[in-house]
Amino acid sequence: MKKLINDPDEVVGDALRGMDAAHDDLRVDHDLKIIYRAQPKAAGKVGLVSGGGSGHEPLHGGFVGPGMLDAACAGEVFTSPVPDQMMAATAAVDTGAGVLHIVKNYTGDIMNFEMAAELAGDDVRVETVITNDDVAVTDSLYTAGRRGVGVTVLLEKIAGAAAEEGQDLDAVAAVANKVNDGGRSMGLALTSCVVPSAGSPTFQLEDDEYELGIGIHGEPGRQRLEMAPAAELAERLVAPILEDRSFDNVIAFVNGMGGSPLLELYLMYGEVRRLLDDAGIRVARSLVGNYITSLEMAGCSVTLLEVDDDLLRLWDAPVSTPGLRWGA
Amino acid sequence: MKKLINDPDEVVGDALRGMDAAHDDLRVDHDLKIIYRAQPKAAGKVGLVSGGGSGHEPLHGGFVGPGMLDAACAGEVFTSPVPDQMMAATAAVDTGAGVLHIVKNYTGDIMNFEMAAELAGDDVRVETVITNDDVAVTDSLYTAGRRGVGVTVLLEKIAGAAAEEGQDLDAVAAVANKVNDGGRSMGLALTSCVVPSAGSPTFQLEDDEYELGIGIHGEPGRQRLEMAPAAELAERLVAPILEDRSFDNVIAFVNGMGGSPLLELYLMYGEVRRLLDDAGIRVARSLVGNYITSLEMAGCSVTLLEVDDDLLRLWDAPVSTPGLRWGA
Repeated sequence: MKKLINDPDEVVGDALRGMDAAHDDLRVDHDLKIIYRAQPKAAGKVGLVSGGGSGHEPLHGGFVGPGMLDAACAGEVFTSPVPDQMMAATAAVDTGAGVLHIVKNYTGDIMNFEMAAELAGDDVRVETVITNDDVAVTDSLYTAGRRGVGVTVLLEKIAGAAAEEGQDLDAVAAVANKVNDGGRSMGLALTSCVVPSAGSPTFQLEDDEYELGIGIHGEPGRQRLEMAPAAELAERLVAPILEDRSFDNVIAFVNGMGGSPLLELYLMYGEVRRLLDDAGIRVARSLVGNYITSLEMAGCSVTLLEVDDDLLRLWDAPVSTPGLRWGA
Repeated sequence: MKKLINDPDEVVGDALRGMDAAHDDLRVDHDLKIIYRAQPKAAGKVGLVSGGGSGHEPLHGGFVGPGMLDAACAGEVFTSPVPDQMMAATAAVDTGAGVLHIVKNYTGDIMNFEMAAELAGDDVRVETVITNDDVAVTDSLYTAGRRGVGVTVLLEKIAGAAAEEGQDLDAVAAVANKVNDGGRSMGLALTSCVVPSAGSPTFQLEDDEYELGIGIHGEPGRQRLEMAPAAELAERLVAPILEDRSFDNVIAFVNGMGGSPLLELYLMYGEVRRLLDDAGIRVARSLVGNYITSLEMAGCSVTLLEVDDDLLRLWDAPVSTPGLRWGA
């Protein structure tokens, strides 16, 4: 294992020190490994808290800031944060308007966020949205039901905008659920990643094969297939999404798993776009890049989100975070 | 070789189709492989044209947009664009105020941009700034003198802001030269990249070694060293920069080579920041992420740029490109 790290067991804390130093508009609680906005909370704004295992950067800490999250709890690499983190973050961001927990559907995350919500008790009103957009598999190594993947990025942006414009907790939770309901994703990997504390690849792929339906922790997908041109890979990602749900007007999101060059992600986006054009699906907005990653895994995922004017307005609203920034 | 591509010889054209589809505010000339702003040029604005081999995305095409470049010429992977591209881009963006060519110091790029400037003749006034910020080596496989690397990103942003606020060609060229003069960089690689048309790694590194002073095309650096913790790697990058020039107040830029996770880049930034603090150097602004890459090479580079109030004002000015965006 060659990585830009010191002690493999201190990677997350070390990285948070760098993140804290790099961004004046963020504040990091280093003991609890929570990333907050540096600016004081706006009175009456619904708080948005997310979090999960590290190794998916910029998700979630890189999405803290005006127009998106109020706080993100960082777990160890590919490991859920603990209820103490979520409780502290929830209490810190509540202005009395309540807090939305945005949770990817993995057993550990669900359990710990549930416990945090219960422990918050009557002091803070908490609603929870669970993302489960991955059409690849039902139930998996870490999941009952479908896994939460790419739609989480779009949801944090859109629900963040709803909270920012002053919608109440029920409304923000409703828009968040609408995003999850209208989003579907599918991914593939060309290589494994290496979890620092493990020190060796999570799985092995031969030089001529790829894993279709890969999870963001390197957990198995649908099948291993012989390596193919991008046009065929795009078809293998888009077809199962379109079989699962119909789409008319979408945000089309090609996400890099971390180790594939941007050149290739744009190339994949071109292939995905051709398939959507052929299917008569209108692309209202696009997003291409590394937003929910699996350390240095090579590969990509495709997320489609059905949008109406309301979701598009929230998508277009200003956002100012390290990972997503426009209009501000 | 496993990549998200179709024909290895058509990678750049295929990727540009995706980029064009993804960004409504860009316009791509697919015959000439030039990326333009979609918005018509502002009368009297100095034009900024850059370009170079592909494989360094988001540089240069991802830096086209308000506040940064007017056009970028994309060569094949790691291969200079040709004079016809540069001439066409120069003519297209000139409003009568002249055009600045931003050229990384590689023999092919220099030669072709020079030829384009000559061929533009009396029709367009062209000034050229050459970036040569890499302290690793003097002369190299593709270079007479030092290589142009990370400072190019900072220069395109700052000179772009100067042009946007209406400075004339001499003033924009002067600020560009000031940025190059005040910037120094040094990089390292943990792995090679694979050029699609070659199909195999450009070089080989053992499992326990890294290449210090690597170029952005995988060209050799200063030496191969035994793999070390991030704290030592940061020292190996920062020390030669501080030996080469003194710094008081800087933009500190930790750039990913493409294949290293953002988690590791933030971790490296933390180490770099500690060294700068120890050296009494004030960090005015930070930039961490993949901005001038070498396909999927793992590794990073450090760039320091000495800044005064004028450069900081230009750095902070709004920019709206796929690769860098704030305040707009």
